[in-house]
Amino acid sequence: MNKYRWLLVLPIALAVSAAFSGNSWGAEGGPGATLESVTDVQKYNRSIHVMAMLLVGFGFLMVFVKRYGLSAVTATYLLVSIAIPLYIKINGLGILGERKIEVDRFLLAEFAAASLLICAGAPLGRLKMPQYLLLGLFFVPCYMVNEWILLGGGLGLIPHGGFVDTGGSILIHAFGALFGLGVVMTMTTESELKIPVESNAASDQFSMLGSMVLWLFWPSFCAALVAPEQVPFTAVNVVISLCGATIATYFVSVALRGKVSMTDMANAALAGGVAIGSTCDRATHSMAFIIGVLGGALSTYGFAVIQGKLQGLVKGIDTCGVTNLHGWPGLFGGIAAVFVVSGISMGAQLKGIGIAIVLSLVTGYITGKILAVFGRKTKPYDDAEEIIE
Amino acid sequence: MNKYRWLLVLPIALAVSAAFSGNSWGAEGGPGATLESVTDVQKYNRSIHVMAMLLVGFGFLMVFVKRYGLSAVTATYLLVSIAIPLYIKINGLGILGERKIEVDRFLLAEFAAASLLICAGAPLGRLKMPQYLLLGLFFVPCYMVNEWILLGGGLGLIPHGGFVDTGGSILIHAFGALFGLGVVMTMTTESELKIPVESNAASDQFSMLGSMVLWLFWPSFCAALVAPEQVPFTAVNVVISLCGATIATYFVSVALRGKVSMTDMANAALAGGVAIGSTCDRATHSMAFIIGVLGGALSTYGFAVIQGKLQGLVKGIDTCGVTNLHGWPGLFGGIAAVFVVSGISMGAQLKGIGIAIVLSLVTGYITGKILAVFGRKTKPYDDAEEIIE
Amino acid sequence: MNKYRWLLVLPIALAVSAAFSGNSWGAEGGPGATLESVTDVQKYNRSIHVMAMLLVGFGFLMVFVKRYGLSAVTATYLLVSIAIPLYIKINGLGILGERKIEVDRFLLAEFAAASLLICAGAPLGRLKMPQYLLLGLFFVPCYMVNEWILLGGGLGLIPHGGFVDTGGSILIHAFGALFGLGVVMTMTTESELKIPVESNAASDQFSMLGSMVLWLFWPSFCAALVAPEQVPFTAVNVVISLCGATIATYFVSVALRGKVSMTDMANAALAGGVAIGSTCDRATHSMAFIIGVLGGALSTYGFAVIQGKLQGLVKGIDTCGVTNLHGWPGLFGGIAAVFVVSGISMGAQLKGIGIAIVLSLVTGYITGKILAVFGRKTKPYDDAEEIIE
Repeated sequence: MNKYRWLLVLPIALAVSAAFSGNSWGAEGGPGATLESVTDVQKYNRSIHVMAMLLVGFGFLMVFVKRYGLSAVTATYLLVSIAIPLYIKINGLGILGERKIEVDRFLLAEFAAASLLICAGAPLGRLKMPQYLLLGLFFVPCYMVNEWILLGGGLGLIPHGGFVDTGGSILIHAFGALFGLGVVMTMTTESELKIPVESNAASDQFSMLGSMVLWLFWPSFCAALVAPEQVPFTAVNVVISLCGATIATYFVSVALRGKVSMTDMANAALAGGVAIGSTCDRATHSMAFIIGVLGGALSTYGFAVIQGKLQGLVKGIDTCGVTNLHGWPGLFGGIAAVFVVSGISMGAQLKGIGIAIVLSLVTGYITGKILAVFGRKTKPYDDAEEIIE
Repeated sequence: MNKYRWLLVLPIALAVSAAFSGNSWGAEGGPGATLESVTDVQKYNRSIHVMAMLLVGFGFLMVFVKRYGLSAVTATYLLVSIAIPLYIKINGLGILGERKIEVDRFLLAEFAAASLLICAGAPLGRLKMPQYLLLGLFFVPCYMVNEWILLGGGLGLIPHGGFVDTGGSILIHAFGALFGLGVVMTMTTESELKIPVESNAASDQFSMLGSMVLWLFWPSFCAALVAPEQVPFTAVNVVISLCGATIATYFVSVALRGKVSMTDMANAALAGGVAIGSTCDRATHSMAFIIGVLGGALSTYGFAVIQGKLQGLVKGIDTCGVTNLHGWPGLFGGIAAVFVVSGISMGAQLKGIGIAIVLSLVTGYITGKILAVFGRKTKPYDDAEEIIE
Repeated sequence: MNKYRWLLVLPIALAVSAAFSGNSWGAEGGPGATLESVTDVQKYNRSIHVMAMLLVGFGFLMVFVKRYGLSAVTATYLLVSIAIPLYIKINGLGILGERKIEVDRFLLAEFAAASLLICAGAPLGRLKMPQYLLLGLFFVPCYMVNEWILLGGGLGLIPHGGFVDTGGSILIHAFGALFGLGVVMTMTTESELKIPVESNAASDQFSMLGSMVLWLFWPSFCAALVAPEQVPFTAVNVVISLCGATIATYFVSVALRGKVSMTDMANAALAGGVAIGSTCDRATHSMAFIIGVLGGALSTYGFAVIQGKLQGLVKGIDTCGVTNLHGWPGLFGGIAAVFVVSGISMGAQLKGIGIAIVLSLVTGYITGKILAVFGRKTKPYDDAEEIIE
């Protein structure tokens, strides 16, 4: 018997609500055993790669926080498990855009989960476990509104197909990071501002594992929904951009700090993937390399220089530095499309970026206000308060 | 020179026996470069996902045992390496069911290896390394007999196609877990009953890595052999079930223990995959979510409450709690098929489950008796006895 | 402000050079959305598996060195990021063999990166970080010359198709290992010869993770470029060989050392993949098993016995024992093809092996001489000199 026994009511409520939800989860019908069904299985296959990024990638990248690694992966489990069914459910209702076929919808649900995990990297270590679930409940609908406006012609603000963002530099990365910035602007307490976020060799080693898993599956993330004949070209673009970012990160990190920082290496090396997102299927290989180098350099500069200043400015701690990895490189990637893609509508592209920035910051800020009502961890960045080894 | 030098004879014997085995390993001929060969490559691709589950998934999930992590992964290597060639060899001989085409047979061999790894989780840490190999030698034929009876019409007990178990809730999970229970019933010594199985933050972190690798590739496990046009729907069902189980595990663990236990989180979150197995291609998404929630809740209750009582009852230690993760949720999944699948033969389904229970417990018990003849580790749960760092 | 600030010029130079490189990166045009484009996506998919081997596989296998794990994975990042664009760029120029289609070229670039990572395992821990990049710059063109001579009819030494090495026993494994041996022959200092390479339980655990990731994706490495209808058979051959090597490694290790060594287990278990390379699509399953058993036994013998003698002979330290894992088993695999493949030209096969041996040792030796000019780490096998946690 203990005071948490009442929580048992929650799984029961979940099961009952699902039982009465009829078939509103249903996707559009799929094809028979044809070339089309085979390409759908190939999309499915990329969806598994993306799932590896969500769980092992983002999950273990966040393990760099010393003594908070078990919480980080537990939070990852919960965030993924709330985001994916919620996205599928809402899309199945046919609101916020048209119902998709099964595999496309699943991939889009994973993208929403990716954006949520990015967002959660900002307040990581200062939320109680159920607050991550709440964060997911608020985040997913906001994310879907933004997606609907930018890609689905929602509210008639951007014409269908007018916004270029194949791999989600803006929709997934910048949106998630800025939403997270909004959350920490309102939630960080005075005392938390003074506590350093520490790592050690063991937590850095796990973090590099997460980083590498993200790096290697990134081509499948960007090429998830492109046509089969475009997949190899897109994938190679993403790899070349990541290579450029990785090398740039090393040199910029040593230039700015004297030695290479594991935080930079584990994170900024990935900024090539973030920045190439918008143009991954349209840039030439040379352009992809340049975008990667600049993305990596920008991200490293963010970790080494911008982050300290920004945190003083907004009075909020961005635990994982998601603004440096996903925020600035994401915005850079979205803007780069204006110069890289021939025939692009500059107006629609910049308008879309502006909408994403405003929407993410505002909804993030409001979400932070609501989360703050439910208190916070007594001892930040510490597993022991909520976890039994 | 040392007393183990004679062991060198074993690899030689292995090579010689293979040399004289002719082509009895041969599979049925495959197709040419067609839509069929392309779908076979897609099955191959899922077979790699399953291999990731076998080695990194099961292997690292078992690393939670403090100071026994190196032995756990070594045992995993040996168990996989004995099970897969043995299954392929026996199927190639054409006994215990018809010979399969190459890729199907390989996937079925992996399933046998999965079941064996589940089984080995029960006595983990108390067997000497060569005893794991012996366990594999006894387990695989028993597993194949059960598979032959339930799916292949063996002995005429269950009509072909009468038993519903696409993702192996009964054939793989419950069979392996109950075989393991049979082994530990007879093998656990008095002194071992008093030694606690301990973990720490580092071993839990590796265990969560294994858990996540299992979680993310589970859709490929369940959809391994389904038709291409069914793969996306099946995969999404599995993911939804896992999401339900993960959320349920969190709340039930906190409800029963006051904090969330890493053992519950790393294991019971996977019970959604175990429980949805039988009906993964037939349940609706709503049903999949309910099955996941109930599977996760049942498994967590198993770890928190049932395990202690069961171990007292059978006088055996189930090191990894495989009965809680694979046993009860597996049986639950197999029985759930009776309610979920329209047109199912309730008689065949329940008869099949009964056969699997009896066969696994009896053959496991006998295998335990035989293994016990070869002694056991002097110091349980300790790497140093058999391993050089 | 610090003395490394000038390094900032490097990423800028990289970006500028890419901007002026025109479209020389371009691949040959790909097919439309057809059965052919679908099989290209399947190759792409195997390329992701190979990428997992490069980063998580080779990267974490090298983490076994205590206190040098963060450097090992950082070096892995840099080596992959230099090798892949460099290979693509050179092939795009149309020198050293014909230009390939996008996905084939990417896979071949990954093979070059694999060979480079193998090579880097020899001097691991004694090079400064930028020296790994230099090593890559020298290695890739040498590798491509060897590839061009053995497979592309370069210099008219070996007729097109005369050399059998589908999975790269010689081209990738032996070449990389012997190049590495060449490097350490000239580079190892007197004082370094006396410093032991140490591991501990934590670093061994990460190393086993890398090992397992290599093991499980190895079938995709060997089957990367084979025709769809050959993929399942080839993959099963590779798995059977790995199983044979894993079991052989265990018994030979215990026979030679009294207990099983984690170095042997993590490394020699993979020798089955190395040795089956040349004949992976042509050996029968029985032959594959024998090749695996012999490869694993040879590799274990290498780690336990040969390595110490060899290091005394060449006055060089092979940190990761790449000669034992990739060198001798690679040569064995290449020679085994003479006995296994019907209709093979023994002359061409042995001539090719001879060329690879001479070319790798000589170019490695020269590269080592050049690298030595740039000094070396003050404190070998230590992260702190170059890394900020």
